[in-house]
Amino acid sequence: MAFEFASRMNEVKASTIREVLKLTERPEVISFGGGMPAAEFFPIEEMKEVTMKVLDEDGQKALQYGPTDGYLPLRKKVVERLNKIGIRGITAEDILLTGGSQQGLDFCGKVFVDPGDAVICEKPSYLGAINAFKAYQCKFIDIPMDDHGMIMEELETALKSNPKVKYIYVIPDFQNPTGKTWSAERRKELVEMANKYKTVIIEDNPYYELRYSGQPQPAIKSFDTQDRVVFLGTFSKTLAPGLRLGWVCAGKEILGKFNLIKQGADLQVNSLTQRQVNKYMEMYDLDGRIKELIEVYRKRREVMVEQMKEHFPKEVKIDIPEGGLFVWVEFPKNISTIELMKKVLEKNVAFIPGDSFYPNGGGENTARFSFSAIPEEKIIEGIARMGQALSEII
Amino acid sequence: MAFEFASRMNEVKASTIREVLKLTERPEVISFGGGMPAAEFFPIEEMKEVTMKVLDEDGQKALQYGPTDGYLPLRKKVVERLNKIGIRGITAEDILLTGGSQQGLDFCGKVFVDPGDAVICEKPSYLGAINAFKAYQCKFIDIPMDDHGMIMEELETALKSNPKVKYIYVIPDFQNPTGKTWSAERRKELVEMANKYKTVIIEDNPYYELRYSGQPQPAIKSFDTQDRVVFLGTFSKTLAPGLRLGWVCAGKEILGKFNLIKQGADLQVNSLTQRQVNKYMEMYDLDGRIKELIEVYRKRREVMVEQMKEHFPKEVKIDIPEGGLFVWVEFPKNISTIELMKKVLEKNVAFIPGDSFYPNGGGENTARFSFSAIPEEKIIEGIARMGQALSEII
Repeated sequence: MAFEFASRMNEVKASTIREVLKLTERPEVISFGGGMPAAEFFPIEEMKEVTMKVLDEDGQKALQYGPTDGYLPLRKKVVERLNKIGIRGITAEDILLTGGSQQGLDFCGKVFVDPGDAVICEKPSYLGAINAFKAYQCKFIDIPMDDHGMIMEELETALKSNPKVKYIYVIPDFQNPTGKTWSAERRKELVEMANKYKTVIIEDNPYYELRYSGQPQPAIKSFDTQDRVVFLGTFSKTLAPGLRLGWVCAGKEILGKFNLIKQGADLQVNSLTQRQVNKYMEMYDLDGRIKELIEVYRKRREVMVEQMKEHFPKEVKIDIPEGGLFVWVEFPKNISTIELMKKVLEKNVAFIPGDSFYPNGGGENTARFSFSAIPEEKIIEGIARMGQALSEII
Repeated sequence: MAFEFASRMNEVKASTIREVLKLTERPEVISFGGGMPAAEFFPIEEMKEVTMKVLDEDGQKALQYGPTDGYLPLRKKVVERLNKIGIRGITAEDILLTGGSQQGLDFCGKVFVDPGDAVICEKPSYLGAINAFKAYQCKFIDIPMDDHGMIMEELETALKSNPKVKYIYVIPDFQNPTGKTWSAERRKELVEMANKYKTVIIEDNPYYELRYSGQPQPAIKSFDTQDRVVFLGTFSKTLAPGLRLGWVCAGKEILGKFNLIKQGADLQVNSLTQRQVNKYMEMYDLDGRIKELIEVYRKRREVMVEQMKEHFPKEVKIDIPEGGLFVWVEFPKNISTIELMKKVLEKNVAFIPGDSFYPNGGGENTARFSFSAIPEEKIIEGIARMGQALSEII
């Protein structure tokens, strides 16, 4: 190495997901890899319309520098949407717009973590969050989950024995990667635990609007009485990820720090994008759009699960999610999904081996499959090819 | 404080510039504060046209996730533009697109700086860079300048006595805040110095295309033979800052680290924005646009300098820049520009007190005035009011 980099660079690894995405750019590959929205439903005509309006009505401001916290009308609309999932008593002052919720994740590390601090997360957890936090040189304590969320006894043991836990990071709805959803009871308990041990909760919730079955659960932040919950949201899954627009909702003291970090990081989100999304929500029915997406994704989820049941050996455990983008699969212990991935790539199919989602190792026999971006006939074809590869291995 | 934040948060301060911008949002204020482009010349109609084209031709990709390093056709165009200022032997592989050059600055800190490391900068230097680097807990060694750039003897003394210098940060063209430009000779010497002491140069160059007089100088990176120069550029000053689109140009080893950091920070720049700017450059003449801007800004610079000479006391030293957005002013030693700022704000005029640009203190009698966004008659009015305030003080 010719250059002397910061010590954090020893921790920062390339995201397996982004690497798999590169491998799968060839059109003949059926990729269940990235958690991508279905591009054929992007509101292209609507985006043309709103862009014309914004540039006609407010063009100079849409192209000029603007405030760090973001465009006020849009922050107000985010507040209204959060009210709907039980987050009350907030105003636009509690919202900072970010470059997707990935930027919110990076800021969590930057605002809270000194090298050696601990971060608690679900086992397994979102790779992009793990990588973002790693850059701040934390150690991870990963807590096992049952079907209702983290196991609270295990969480309490971890909190007792680790006074330097800076935050508990969770994805409570249709978790990435497992698709699991926390029960309301468990969410409440989590907030009580954070209060008791005086720590912070990062509620990363990109998928909550995409529910295909079961009952909606209140946001963890709806139980927050001490400003201990930082809620991260995004328009990536409901509108379009290419716009890179998300938000952080948090109390004054914490959000003030996030605002300072945003100044140094990139000053502000794209002024035009903020106005495009705001105008979209004024001119069109975002909730109606989401309902249509739900119909499409629900069907794709069903097709994927059916096909897996048909083509995968019986020993394979398939988690059926109530929403979101992912089906989580546990193969028999003796199967390495990294090896399996190599095998199926030869058949032009891709998925994400699960081990990347375990910050402290494990999950070598697990895998994440995304169904959202793949038309049904391709899901059928891709899973059948997977089944072939599996039968050659097992 | 109820929460325990990372120790870096003790270093991170609100940007004076962003704070002044907030104060000056009232329309009656004539603000020479922010380094803002003239909004009345933003290519609004052109942006409408290119957005329609992009969404018609490539809408799905423009709204979907894309590669971290950025849209290839745009990276190729950046290479062509850099060739014109003498940066040769580079390809699109050497370019990473960023959220304005501010994000490039943040990444410099993140990639290179461990707490306690030293960063060398010009004295004074750009506030936004100082704040971005501070978040990584560096110490600053600020090197005095003469009219040709940093004084090389002082730089060498600093490099000799500080083995932990991670990089030398400079803005060689129409520096922010002083407006100074480095001579070609001094640029070459800087690269030789970096080679000799095996350190890195960050060449932050947002303004080089905005030259109003004098001869263009080659980029510092054009003298680079050891991949030691990281060049930061932006479309903020030539096209529109609200789009938040800049780039980093660096050799393979360093840029690889920047790419990893970009993944964790926010995955990628807005896919639509990248295509809008690329399409703009295909459909319109960016260089022609820059020529028109130069005519406008040159005149505004002249008016500002003339008015200052007329209305400011003779003891006031006015630096006339060959380009860029700023006139740098040194008042007599006994004048505090923070006090002066309070005084002139009462007269609805604003500027940036210079002390914020000195990372280790100093410059209390200096100030930065931006002329780019203010019509001539407002410059005349604003500087006259400044003169009044000064005559009441002196």
